[in-house]
Parts: sequence; structure tokens; C-alpha cells
Amino acid sequence: MGMVGGGLTSFIGPVHRKAAGIDGEIELVAGAFSVIPGESKATGEALYLDPSRVYETYDEMFAAEKNMPADKRLDFISVVTPNHVHFGPSKAALEHGYHVIVEKPIAFSLDEAKTLRKLVDKTGLILGLTHTYTGYPMVKEARKFVSDGKLGKIRKVYVEYPQGWLSTLLEKSGNMQASWRTDPKQSGLGGAIGDIGTHAANLAEYITGQKISEVCALVHTVVEGRHLDDDTSMLLKFDKGASGVLLATQVAAGEENNLNIRVYGEKGGIEWRQQEPNTMIVKWHGKPMEVYRTGQGYMSDEAKAFTRTPAGHPEGYLEAFANIYRAFGKAVKEYKPGKKVNYEKYDFPDVEDGVRGMNFVTTVVKSVNSTKKWTPIKDV
Amino acid sequence: MGMVGGGLTSFIGPVHRKAAGIDGEIELVAGAFSVIPGESKATGEALYLDPSRVYETYDEMFAAEKNMPADKRLDFISVVTPNHVHFGPSKAALEHGYHVIVEKPIAFSLDEAKTLRKLVDKTGLILGLTHTYTGYPMVKEARKFVSDGKLGKIRKVYVEYPQGWLSTLLEKSGNMQASWRTDPKQSGLGGAIGDIGTHAANLAEYITGQKISEVCALVHTVVEGRHLDDDTSMLLKFDKGASGVLLATQVAAGEENNLNIRVYGEKGGIEWRQQEPNTMIVKWHGKPMEVYRTGQGYMSDEAKAFTRTPAGHPEGYLEAFANIYRAFGKAVKEYKPGKKVNYEKYDFPDVEDGVRGMNFVTTVVKSVNSTKKWTPIKDV
Amino acid sequence: MGMVGGGLTSFIGPVHRKAAGIDGEIELVAGAFSVIPGESKATGEALYLDPSRVYETYDEMFAAEKNMPADKRLDFISVVTPNHVHFGPSKAALEHGYHVIVEKPIAFSLDEAKTLRKLVDKTGLILGLTHTYTGYPMVKEARKFVSDGKLGKIRKVYVEYPQGWLSTLLEKSGNMQASWRTDPKQSGLGGAIGDIGTHAANLAEYITGQKISEVCALVHTVVEGRHLDDDTSMLLKFDKGASGVLLATQVAAGEENNLNIRVYGEKGGIEWRQQEPNTMIVKWHGKPMEVYRTGQGYMSDEAKAFTRTPAGHPEGYLEAFANIYRAFGKAVKEYKPGKKVNYEKYDFPDVEDGVRGMNFVTTVVKSVNSTKKWTPIKDV
Amino acid sequence: MGMVGGGLTSFIGPVHRKAAGIDGEIELVAGAFSVIPGESKATGEALYLDPSRVYETYDEMFAAEKNMPADKRLDFISVVTPNHVHFGPSKAALEHGYHVIVEKPIAFSLDEAKTLRKLVDKTGLILGLTHTYTGYPMVKEARKFVSDGKLGKIRKVYVEYPQGWLSTLLEKSGNMQASWRTDPKQSGLGGAIGDIGTHAANLAEYITGQKISEVCALVHTVVEGRHLDDDTSMLLKFDKGASGVLLATQVAAGEENNLNIRVYGEKGGIEWRQQEPNTMIVKWHGKPMEVYRTGQGYMSDEAKAFTRTPAGHPEGYLEAFANIYRAFGKAVKEYKPGKKVNYEKYDFPDVEDGVRGMNFVTTVVKSVNSTKKWTPIKDV
Repeated sequence: MGMVGGGLTSFIGPVHRKAAGIDGEIELVAGAFSVIPGESKATGEALYLDPSRVYETYDEMFAAEKNMPADKRLDFISVVTPNHVHFGPSKAALEHGYHVIVEKPIAFSLDEAKTLRKLVDKTGLILGLTHTYTGYPMVKEARKFVSDGKLGKIRKVYVEYPQGWLSTLLEKSGNMQASWRTDPKQSGLGGAIGDIGTHAANLAEYITGQKISEVCALVHTVVEGRHLDDDTSMLLKFDKGASGVLLATQVAAGEENNLNIRVYGEKGGIEWRQQEPNTMIVKWHGKPMEVYRTGQGYMSDEAKAFTRTPAGHPEGYLEAFANIYRAFGKAVKEYKPGKKVNYEKYDFPDVEDGVRGMNFVTTVVKSVNSTKKWTPIKDV
Repeated sequence: MGMVGGGLTSFIGPVHRKAAGIDGEIELVAGAFSVIPGESKATGEALYLDPSRVYETYDEMFAAEKNMPADKRLDFISVVTPNHVHFGPSKAALEHGYHVIVEKPIAFSLDEAKTLRKLVDKTGLILGLTHTYTGYPMVKEARKFVSDGKLGKIRKVYVEYPQGWLSTLLEKSGNMQASWRTDPKQSGLGGAIGDIGTHAANLAEYITGQKISEVCALVHTVVEGRHLDDDTSMLLKFDKGASGVLLATQVAAGEENNLNIRVYGEKGGIEWRQQEPNTMIVKWHGKPMEVYRTGQGYMSDEAKAFTRTPAGHPEGYLEAFANIYRAFGKAVKEYKPGKKVNYEKYDFPDVEDGVRGMNFVTTVVKSVNSTKKWTPIKDV
Repeated sequence: MGMVGGGLTSFIGPVHRKAAGIDGEIELVAGAFSVIPGESKATGEALYLDPSRVYETYDEMFAAEKNMPADKRLDFISVVTPNHVHFGPSKAALEHGYHVIVEKPIAFSLDEAKTLRKLVDKTGLILGLTHTYTGYPMVKEARKFVSDGKLGKIRKVYVEYPQGWLSTLLEKSGNMQASWRTDPKQSGLGGAIGDIGTHAANLAEYITGQKISEVCALVHTVVEGRHLDDDTSMLLKFDKGASGVLLATQVAAGEENNLNIRVYGEKGGIEWRQQEPNTMIVKWHGKPMEVYRTGQGYMSDEAKAFTRTPAGHPEGYLEAFANIYRAFGKAVKEYKPGKKVNYEKYDFPDVEDGVRGMNFVTTVVKSVNSTKKWTPIKDV
Repeated sequence: MGMVGGGLTSFIGPVHRKAAGIDGEIELVAGAFSVIPGESKATGEALYLDPSRVYETYDEMFAAEKNMPADKRLDFISVVTPNHVHFGPSKAALEHGYHVIVEKPIAFSLDEAKTLRKLVDKTGLILGLTHTYTGYPMVKEARKFVSDGKLGKIRKVYVEYPQGWLSTLLEKSGNMQASWRTDPKQSGLGGAIGDIGTHAANLAEYITGQKISEVCALVHTVVEGRHLDDDTSMLLKFDKGASGVLLATQVAAGEENNLNIRVYGEKGGIEWRQQEPNTMIVKWHGKPMEVYRTGQGYMSDEAKAFTRTPAGHPEGYLEAFANIYRAFGKAVKEYKPGKKVNYEKYDFPDVEDGVRGMNFVTTVVKSVNSTKKWTPIKDV
């Protein structure tokens, strides 16, 4: 694996490296870690890399590494730069014939996302997207629960992503994370919508197997002086008949990273909370509630495949992240040029999820500016 | 106290009686319990009442009881009939000079509610409304927390009332509760909106001290064959700048009576759930969460005034209900004809809450039929 | 009902009165509320009693009330005095032919308890004991769960009663509750053992249907200057093969009234916590956990019989207390002189529980003073 | 790092490897993975190791690897064999001059443990022990809380380790983990005492800074046909005045790995549960409870040093395990022959913890066979 971005001050870079490394199946061997002069080199050193494989730009890296002997050649590129630099290196990597795994969102605009999709279609290469939260074993279980019809027809979906870290004008106090995430030039059209709203939407669609078809959104900037939205709530309609609510906010003071979802069908409902990810509550109509737990023998094979420890030995965020890498890595390992990749089998977020995410953000922004109640999410 | 409604098969009648009786301050001495011939008498017997004070109709009761000697005379009337029979006896009672406590909703239509308000204004009599959930001590604490400014300016309000009991077409299976609650002729304009949505709205306004000023609502009937809505979600704007979401549904299969609210301000948020009503979670920005508990010495005087047992001896629904009766009863006891009642001091839901509830339902129904995003709640 | 004790400053008196009154089946009509001159009268007034039925001493009351006409006569006596005054009025009441319900512990010593038992046996009258915690519907459910064999053979029992209110030398600061409860002359042989340890032991035996047969106890006084024990932990053996741990402490600073129990059998375990009394967790070996909830249709008839509100409308401590009164009251109502009372049918704590509690305290104190590991609880 | 044990069918081997690998600071380069012919080789292949560095026995490995050039030489040995094979390779490794990290328990007997301690003292080399649970950041926080005196003098310690996996005679059904853990020849003197009781004791001592000085134990075999104890409960006295209870059982059917601890001092108590390891509840006398969360800015530096992700991104068992490796690895990296290692600074379990664990097991077994209440844990 070669990495683009993820220099010494990066938050998400080390997360990707730990997640990729945890199973001993993926090795970081090259990188263009930063545009800050010298930082790429320093990062490479800190990571014990061969200095000859540490580059100043990703273009250099892609060009130089192509000449490596087969057994040392990069199998794929990991792109972990800020949002506005996802598209460039991803596109270049695909064009150089590399598989790519890219931090979410896939790009800066819907058009960019569509360009990447076209490139993936054309090259047959694999693009993975680290929508981390669908990597949790219990999320797999929830999806299986719904697709097996255990809840009956799905009626209601409530998905929430409350955070509190942007309750103050943090971006003015030198916090780098806050700084780029609230800057339209680096972050994109949407603040809370894009940063966390897309995770919530992705989670809801992943678990229910239904696509959001219409939104009615309230989006605004709660903290004065901020340049992007930091709060959204919206009513949802799904394509197979469910309806629901999505809320994503960065100003729920006191909240950490409280992504959670509840899905109700005719017979009962399920509830999952990211902060206690190894537990799923199942509420039955007329029967006692049940509590499902990661690592138990009764879990589905789909969930078990993404579990590393026995029940009662909690798994967390890094393991969920690692699950994306593991599934993506397996697809890369089994990849045969010219043969279509069976994404269903590997079960990781791909270019389609990326396009869908950008489409969601674009539509929500459109809804905000509309006085009409409902705005449809069109196929793109 | 004299009671209208609450015959042997009633659900809410016994709840009112237990709630009124728990403190030993209020005694049921007369009643017109049912329109079913003989049932009023049978109910009176079961309740050990003097048969001469058990009536077939409330008109009879109001007329006859007025002639009682002062020390035996009814202090007030409790109206616990189905929704469409709230207005009649309440109006008659006021006209006969009785104070009235009436089960929520106050009436069948906004116009009826306004008529009652006019009558209260004119007579100076007291009308209490059993919006039970604001009777919990921890809800008083939450309100105090907000009004003391502990959370800073309020930004977000999420209030939910999910139930699951109407997940099937229960009204067709002989269930009396389901039957009248889903019948527009007995229940009114709104199903879930009126039955539980108003509780949620009332709770949100009570705690925040802000009024809902605009709604954008999705309301529909999920279970086929039902004659009233059983599910609603709506975006909210409040008059002092907060925004939020309200959801009320009777088809969240597996849910019991899961009323809950979260309120976030600049400095933190609070969370309260009716099913564990003695606990309030306070989430602080940058400090450890706190957990407040009913009965503790650190609770506010406002909350302590509504507590009966020490911390760790849980109080429940009946106690919350009893708190409404206790506060109302105290106002009645201290009532002086011609002197204005200080509702703020006693802290129980009154005719204004009743009008507001009907106004809410009426506006939400209007929103549903509108293609425009926002519908204002007008002053009435 | 006539009451002994429960004057204006009493904690438990009002609890008994509210609990007795909640269902509208029991009416307080007479009382000897206090030995403090004038307080009995003042209490009677505050309770709206007929002054002629308010007495200075219980002897007076018992004598005078016997002459009442049949329809006004007292059905039973409620004894709510401090521990050292439980025996006297209970004995006198039985001797005067009254049924008795007495606050726990039944008496000051094992001998006194045995005397009461003899009297109950001789007179055939009913003696109820307010071991409140077995009055919760969910405790009934737990007992039924075990007796139905759902957990298989019971192996382990962990019962705890941690409180924190005596973490400081509260009795020296004028707190009346702390004062008499830590005074050997008013409270008895055991401090924490007697006050709360007996509740824990009673709960464990009630749910499991097994009797504690041997104890190995650590009992001591943690807070310097206190005259009774405030902390105990003990290993337990049960007569049908289970073993376990009991802990009861009043110095677990920060705890409220956290009585809880876990019982494990061959197939699974159950867990119940008094502070959230409407929930029971069932942990299954190899299957998802279940969560049982008061008021649900799937609950056993034994539990349903003690429920007042539908699921999701929480019941609390007063309702549990009221359940003891209701069951006792029903037994009193159906009592026929000369006919043996079927205690099993009514399901409330009786004189046998009282004797057993005193025997437990006596044995634990013996264990403390022994260097031997195990001390048997002998039949008495 | 070189590894002894951890072949393809091992449970704990992969856990060690993932834990060691997660931070990118430790690389597995050699191993003697199994005594089963061919399995060591197969394991090496699966792990992408250089075949020339995969050995059939640890003796071979230690001998051969000593001749590696400095930059390829093993920095330390990880011993992950079953209990009865901890001593041999650890001793040999130390004798060959390697630092050692060894799976708990350190050895098969107290004598073996003391031999290793002597060897560590003599060589000055580092021995780490993977008592995983003290690796959690929140356990560090708990320890700091106590040592900072926030709870006042510690009075009560309740520590529990209930599991349910041995509720049936699993060892007879071909389960390898059950098989060796219940075999006295492979597991040692204690079943539940050794396997999980030592974790509980270690956790209690680590957090409180007090040593268990006396025990009074009930230990037995609940499941018929089993050759080692599967259940223990004991009363504890600590050297600085606290007392408490420890329970460790493998027959609490339905429990997973529910290690938990509660510690109460004069001012309040703390509670931590391994299954939700990122949360610590702090109960205060007279103040609202607090909830501490991993990753928050208010955590102590001691805890922050062992955290990888921001608050709300849950960390789990592997991260706790990795914390032991990280601290041990740092000590190894900074090791200077002849200079005493400052164990306090690195904060990982060492040879002293190993000796203490064996001493605990030995004493508990002695207590079981004694009719006396208390058995002291002697210094060894």
C-alpha cells in the first residue's frame, strides 16, 4: 500500500494506517504524505519506511513506483487527504492502474464523483470508500436482520448523528480539524451535511436496503461566524415505502460521536448506537426485547466474518475501520484484470456509495433553498 | 371531587382516582361514571360511594350536588370521558360554578377549546388539564435547568413519543382503547398527533420555555384500513430561536410509551426519558456528563416540591399524575372568588395549555395538506 | 385501618398511608400516631380524621375501638413505629383480636418474633410484614421464572444492597432517621445487617425458593464513632445447592438504594435492580439476552396481578408498597375466623418471614464473632 | 519480536500479533509457533515471515537468532503458549539475553514465578505480563482518581469476573480452549481462580493501590465431571484498611466476559465494566453522578497516554492489549544494559505482578482447604 496524505499532524492518516495494519495483511511501503516541504520525509522516517519510497507529490510516487519489480509493487493507493484533495490523487491513481481506497467523501462535487465512477467502470479497477460505520459487525447483523425479513416490512427509519465539538467557533482558535472542515473551499458544499450527514444517510440505506428518495431539509449555521452549515434535520421518504427522520448536527453540546439508528418494521424494531457498537437492541411487538452482542455464536455469518474477538471482548472503531480495509484488501488480492468484481461478496463501500453521498449532499442543499416541502433525490 | 366518566371498563378513570387519592387530600364522593345504563351505579358501588350521590348523567349530578350543605359539597369535577365528551361536561361544570380538571385533550376542536377559555376567563374558575408528563419531578428540574440558563441559549430540541401498540389493526379486534382512539368521531382531527403528539409538543414547550412557532410535518396512516393518522414526524422552529424535531408514532413496533426529550444549549444538553423518569442525563461540553436523580438533596426546590420518596425509591407514572392533582387541588383549596389565580405558583397545565394543544393539532393537519415547507402556528 | 406510629415527622408513616390509600380499598380511620404529647392529635387533624378516633396510646385505641359498631370497626392495625416498638403494639393488637400489618423488622429480637408467631398460630389472625421489595411485579416474575425451571437448577445467587447515606457520622448531625437506626437500643442487634441485609436475604430466598443455610460473614463498623455495624459482606450457602454472596452496606458513598439481585441457573441468569424496577434482564447461554418489562402481555399472571398501569407507564416504590397492602387487605377481607389462611394465594410477607429475618440477623452476628468459616442458620 | 506459541489454532496468538502490530512500532520477524510438526512452518507462511526465521522449537530459535546482525536481531520474545509452557521459554529467553513478554499467568507454580523473578533481578532484563485489563485507558483513569484522593480513603472494593462459557461440560465436546483450561496439568492449581480470578485481583490492586492481605474463600466445581474449580467467591481484606468481595465464576450462564469493579471511598465511588470499557461512572455523596469517557480532554495525562482515538470512537480489547505491548515496547526501546528500568514510568504489568498472581492462587487454594475464616497472603 502507498499512501497519499496522512502527514504527522493528520488525524485520519494514523487511523488508516492502524486499521490497515491490524490484521498483518497489508503493509505500508510508500507514501506522499504531505504538501508541506519536508513533512512527507519526516513522516516516512517516523514510520520506518525506506526513504527512497517516500515522495513529495503523489504524481512522483505513482510514476516511480510503477517501475518496481512485481513483488515490491504497490497493490493499491490509500488517499487520506482533506476533502478537496480526494479527487485528484484518486483519479491519478486509477489512471496509473492502481486500485484506490479513499477517505470519505469521495470527492468535492457530484461531478467529480461521477468522473471517478466513469473511470472505475472503464478500468475495472477497485475503488473503496471508508464509510467506517458500516464496517461494524453489528451493522452487518442489522442489515441481515432486515433483509431476512425478521422485522417484516420496514416502516420507520430514525437515524441521528449528533456531535457537539463545533458548539463554539473552534475554527477561530487554531484547531486544524475544525478549520478545514468548516471551510467551504476545503470541505465542500456541505458542513454537517457532508461530514456526518452522509454517514447517517449511508448507514440508513445500508441497513434497510432502501434508498432515500425524497428529502425535506432544515439546514443552517447555528454558530455565528461559521462559513458552513453545522446543523441539519430532515424528513425522509424511502423508495420502498419507509419514511423517517435524519438529523446530523455538530452543535449538540456535550455529544461525542453519537451516531445511532432505529429501524421499525411490522413486527419489531432494532436500535444500534455507534458508541456501544457491540450491542443491538431488538424490540419485539408483544415479546420481550432482545439484546444481540458481537462475537456470540448466534450472530449471522455475515457479521461473524467481521469479528476478531469472542463475545465480551469489545471491538471498537479501529476494528470497524480495519474491516473496510480487510474487505477491500481481499477484493484487491483476488482481483483478476478483465473480470468483474463481485462487490456484494466483499461487502465494502465503493464508488457507487461515493456518488450517492455526493448526490445526497447536493440534493439536501437544493432542498434547503426550496420553499417546497419535498425535494426528490434523482438518479445520477 | 365528583367524576364524569371512568366507568368500570375505563382505562384512565382508575388512573385519575388513584392519582387523586394517593396523598389523602382528595376524596371522590360523587360521580356520573357512564352512559351505559346501570354502569354508573355499578361503578359507584365498587368504589364504596354513597349510592345517593351516583348519577346517570352529569347534568343530574351538577344540579343535585349544588344543593349539598357546604361541608359536603363538591370542590371540583374531574372529567375523564373519551375525547369527544371532554367539552360538554367541562363547560357544564364551569357554568354550574365548579372548578374542573379534565383529561387531555381539553376538547374536540380548537373552537371548543377557545369557548372553554372564554368561560374560564369569565368565571375566574380553575381548569386543570392532565398533561401528565410535566408532573414528573425531573421534568420540573429540566425546566429549571433551562430557565436558570445552565445550558446557555437553547439551540436544538428533539422530542419523541414512539409507541408500538397500534402496529397492527388492533381496532378491528375488539380493543376498546384502540377503537375510540382511531375513530375520528370520538378522537378528533388527529390520531397520533392528538393523542401523543400534543404531549410531546407540550413537554418541549414546558421545558424550554419556548413556543413552537412553525412546523413542517409529515403525517400519515401507516397501517392500512385505519381511519386516523398513526404516525407523524415534523421539523420545528421555536419562537426564541431554537429548532428541532418532533416525532410521534403509534407504529414503532416494540416500543411501549417511550416519550423522551433532548435539549441542547450552548454549554451542554439534557436528556430525559419517561420510562426511567427519575434520571436526567446532563451532557456538558468539555466536562464529564452528569446524572441527576429524583429525591436527591441537590435537586431544585421546584422539583423537590413534587417528590414523595427519598432518592433510590423510584417514583412513577401515578405519582406524576398525582402531582397534577396535588397542584390543582392546592389551587382549588386556596381559591378565593374574585381573586386571580397565580398559575405560575401552582405549576399545573391549565386552559391555556389546552387551547395551545388544539391549536397545535389544527396547524399540523394544515401543514400536512400544504406543499409549502413551513406552516406557522398562529396565536389564537 | 388504625395506625400505630407515623406521626408528623415520621418517614415511613406517610409511605404506609399513601400505599394503603392508593387503590381506594383501605381507609385510615383511627390512630395513635405518636408518644410525643399532642403530636398524635396534630397528625390526626392533618389527616382529616375524626378527632374522637385519634388516641394518645395504642392501648387506648385498641380498647376504645373494640366498641365501635360493626360497620365502623377497625379491620386491622398498621404498626409503623421504630424497630424497638414493633413488638409491643403488634402483640397487643393480636391479643385484642386485630389483624396486624407491621413495618419490618417484625421485632427487636428473635425471641419476640417467635412470641408473635406463637400468637398468630394460636389466634389464627393475619400478620403481614412490609418487606416492600418483594411487592414489585418484576420480583414476582423473577420468582415465577425460577420456579418454572426456566433457568434450570439454580447455581449462583448474588444479592446486594448498597447505600451511601451513612458514609458520614450523620447521626451526630441531628438526622432523626440516622439517629435511631444507628442506636442499638432502638434498632436492635444489627445495623446494616438488620436494616437492609434482611431485605437482601428475604429477596434472595423469595426469588430462588431456596433458604440460606450457612453464612460466612464479615461485618464491621466503617465510620468511626458509630455504635452499630454499617457494612457487611457474606458468603452464602443455600439449602438446595446454590451458593452466593450477599452484601449490604450503608457506606457505599454515592449509592442511593441500590438493592439488586442476580440469579444464575444451568441455562441462564436473571438480573433485577430496584432502582429501575420495571425491567428484568434475562441472560441466556447461547441465545440473545432478553429484557422483560412490567405491564407487558407476556408477563406471568402472578406478576400481572400486581400491576396497575400498562407497559411504559413506570410503577415505583409506592406501588410495590401498595401491593403488600393490597394482598394483605384482600386476605383480611376474605378472612373467616377458624379457617386457615392460604398465604400462598395472597402472596405477601408474613410472620414466618419476620421470624426468619430475626434468625438471619442473629446468625450473622454469631458468624462475625466466630473464627470458623461457616455458621449454620438453624431452624427456629 | 519473535514469538513462542501462537500456531494457527491458537486463540491468544493472533490477539498478541494484532495488539503488537496495531501501532506500527513492533514487527514480528521470527517464531517457533507450535510443537505440532509442520504447524510452525505453516503459521510462518500464513504470516508472510521469512521461512528461514521460522523454527520448530524455541531453543533453536533463541540459538539461531542470536547470530543475526544487530539491525535484524530480535528485540524481545513473546510467549503465548498454554499456561504450563509459560515458564520454560520465558526462562530460556531471559537466559539467552532476550527481554520477554509473556501471556498471563507468568508460570505454572509460585516457585516457577519466583525463579523468573530471580532471573529478572539478576539479568536486569525486562519481563512484561499481559494482564490485559489494566491496559484500558479508563482503568488508568480509575487508578489516578484513587491515588489523587478524589474518593477519600478507600473503604470498599467489589470486583467481579463472571463468565458463563463453562456452564456446561464443554471440555468433553472437543472445545480446545475449554479442554486445556480445565485440565490441571496444563492450567495449574486453579481453574476459575487462576484463569480469571487473578485478573480480578490484579485489577483491584492496580486501581486501589492496596494489596489484598487476607482472603476467606469459597471455591468449588459446579459442573459435575470437571477437574478444576469453575467458581469462586471470597471476602477480602486489604493492607491499607479496605475490605471487599471478589467473585470469579465461569458458570454464570449467559455472561460473556463481564469483568467489573466498584471502589468506594469516603466521598464517593467509581464503577467500571470491561464490556463498555470507555465509560467510568463516578458516584458522589450528595452530588450528581458523573460519567467519564475515554478520549475526552478532561481525562488525566496518565489515561490519555493510552488512547488512540477521539471521544466517541470506541476503543476495545485489542487496543487495551496493544497498550501493554506499546508500554513494554517503549521500555525495551529505551532499555540500557546495566541501568535500572523505571517500571512506574512505563506502566505495564511485570514480573512482580506475575509472582503476586501465583501467590494469590496458592493462598486462595489454601483458604479453601481451611476451616478458619481468614487466610493471610504472605509476602514471598
